Amino acid sequence: MPITIYGDSISGNCLKVKWTAELLGVPYEWIEVDVVKGEARSDAIRALNPAAQVPTVLFEDGRALAQSNAIIVHLAEGSSLIPKDAYWRAKMFEWLFWEQYSHEPYIAVRRFQKHYLGKPDSELDPKLLERGEGALARMEAWLEASPYLVNGALSCADISLAAYTRLSHEGGFDLAKFPAVKAWVARVDADLGLEPAA
Amino acid sequence: MPITIYGDSISGNCLKVKWTAELLGVPYEWIEVDVVKGEARSDAIRALNPAAQVPTVLFEDGRALAQSNAIIVHLAEGSSLIPKDAYWRAKMFEWLFWEQYSHEPYIAVRRFQKHYLGKPDSELDPKLLERGEGALARMEAWLEASPYLVNGALSCADISLAAYTRLSHEGGFDLAKFPAVKAWVARVDADLGLEPAA
Repeated sequence: MPITIYGDSISGNCLKVKWTAELLGVPYEWIEVDVVKGEARSDAIRALNPAAQVPTVLFEDGRALAQSNAIIVHLAEGSSLIPKDAYWRAKMFEWLFWEQYSHEPYIAVRRFQKHYLGKPDSELDPKLLERGEGALARMEAWLEASPYLVNGALSCADISLAAYTRLSHEGGFDLAKFPAVKAWVARVDADLGLEPAA
Repeated sequence: MPITIYGDSISGNCLKVKWTAELLGVPYEWIEVDVVKGEARSDAIRALNPAAQVPTVLFEDGRALAQSNAIIVHLAEGSSLIPKDAYWRAKMFEWLFWEQYSHEPYIAVRRFQKHYLGKPDSELDPKLLERGEGALARMEAWLEASPYLVNGALSCADISLAAYTRLSHEGGFDLAKFPAVKAWVARVDADLGLEPAA
């Protein structure tokens, strides 16, 4: 089914959806929405997603879906990106919820403030660096022993976590301190057919 | 299968797991973990969940699972708490991810700071009230037209969103401003067999 993706090309959350669609061969139209200019709060987006956020996806039947991780899981239903085993599927969701609560709010937010809003480091909340590095350290510990986040194979969790991790240098994070994470980013980039971001 | 739930009884995130287990008739043992005293950062919890957070669940086979929403969805697999229809299942996940990103960080955090840490309103970040009320307004708009969050029937999304919404008065939120949300809280409380919290 062809879908319409409303997204901002600088947003890792939006790119997750694009990559998943491309990997799975789901035809899509991309409508660029400039978040910095406030375009996600337009009436057109609000009509599809009252939370006024992108990514938002519109299906052919006129129904819409929001939240990057909900969208990629929906697109991936029945594919190898979702473990068949119930426990590993649950662990994939554990990583996906952790990403939105304990990773994105630090790593993506520091990148946005530093790289796009141009804030000097002195004006950035020190918690962003500290907790972002904490999130990377948690991933490092896992990835030292496993090539992917869930049961040794690429899943939606890798696509989701890679989105901002691969751009974390733009937020002032140094992946040289996290070699297993760095190697995993290269692995996921290759799987997704992406040019290295750093 | 009997499970062990490591949780703090004052945490909505932990109570979600308890309520889901009770509703589904899953036998469980509850191990109290006092978050305010830092017990979630103990070695025992870290061994099960490197993110050092509760709820964390331990299954009989020795495997563990964290993240409240991942746990309740796992417990509810195959039950009526998860829509059979793929689109509505995706909408359930949309609400679950939104809860962790746009609801809990304001409504639960303001409650914790005000009610448990005893901070005066003057020391609370004004964004907590503003964004928390924004989250309640979004729920109000949906619930004015539907008795539950997903396709007119109780799902994991209601259990998850009700957890902190029903305690939001402890964070200084006034559900009298959101009558459809208030009626929905009473409905979910009744479904879960809970005494009204407010």
